[in-house]
Formats: sequence, C-alpha cells, structure tokens
Amino acid sequence: MVKSIFYHAGCPVCVSAEQDIVNLIGADNVEVVHIGEDRSRISEAEKAGVKSVPALLTPNGNVLHLNFGASINDLKG
Amino acid sequence: MVKSIFYHAGCPVCVSAEQDIVNLIGADNVEVVHIGEDRSRISEAEKAGVKSVPALLTPNGNVLHLNFGASINDLKG
Repeated sequence: MVKSIFYHAGCPVCVSAEQDIVNLIGADNVEVVHIGEDRSRISEAEKAGVKSVPALLTPNGNVLHLNFGASINDLKG
Repeated sequence: MVKSIFYHAGCPVCVSAEQDIVNLIGADNVEVVHIGEDRSRISEAEKAGVKSVPALLTPNGNVLHLNFGASINDLKG
C-alpha cells in the first residue's frame, strides 16, 4: 500500500491532529512531514494541492485539510 | 475498538471525504451519520464539538474537521 503523507508545521493544532491520524490509520501507513522544518517539501505539498496545514495526502492523491492550523502561504514567507 | 463517527450532510465535499476516510481507516471502524437527514443527531454532534461537516469524531473524543463543507449552524436552520 502506498503511504499517506501528513503535512504539518509543528503548531499545537497540527500535533493534536497528527496523533489522531496516526492512531486511526497506523504509524506504518503515514509519513509525517514537518514543512516548517523541511522547507524543501513545501513546493511538493503545494503541487499535491495542500492549501493549509495540517493536511493529509491520501494514497489516491486526495488532500484532506484538517482542523485549520496555518495557510501554506504563511509558511513560505 | 470504539468506532469513529463521520458526520456529514451529503454535500459533494462530504462524500469525497467520506470515501477517503473509509478507505483509510476501514468501513468497519467508522459509523457514517448523515445529519442532514438524521436531524436528531445534530445535537449529539454539537455536544461532541463538531462545528462544521464533514467531521470525524475519533474514539478518544477528538474532532477532526475536514475540508470545510457546511457550518453545523447552517444545518439547524
């Protein structure tokens, strides 16, 4: 199975959502990417359709935006 | 394991998110509730902290608000 990717930026809302997602779908099924620290992956996230974090990119290419934490544009500044 | 509950109101955004969630965590692990049709469960959803749909109530009581579809207040009107 292709992994989901959970993009976040370290905010409290992100961390809480991360724990929920990992609990629900299993740590082995999701790659967690901190785009506040790993800034080279911001453009990858944008290309996938991520508008805000936290967000979950599913294996079929859909993006689920979770409890709004931060706009991806604010992370690029 | 206690099931998660996915609250939605039948909107296209809700249906798309529902499919993703069911694929990710498995149909057996989530109860799907259409609060546009089953209006008696709106107050239950509100009490759990649901502010908009689609939303996923996790087994530990957290609410993940997904891609914004509709405010729960708009559903009560």
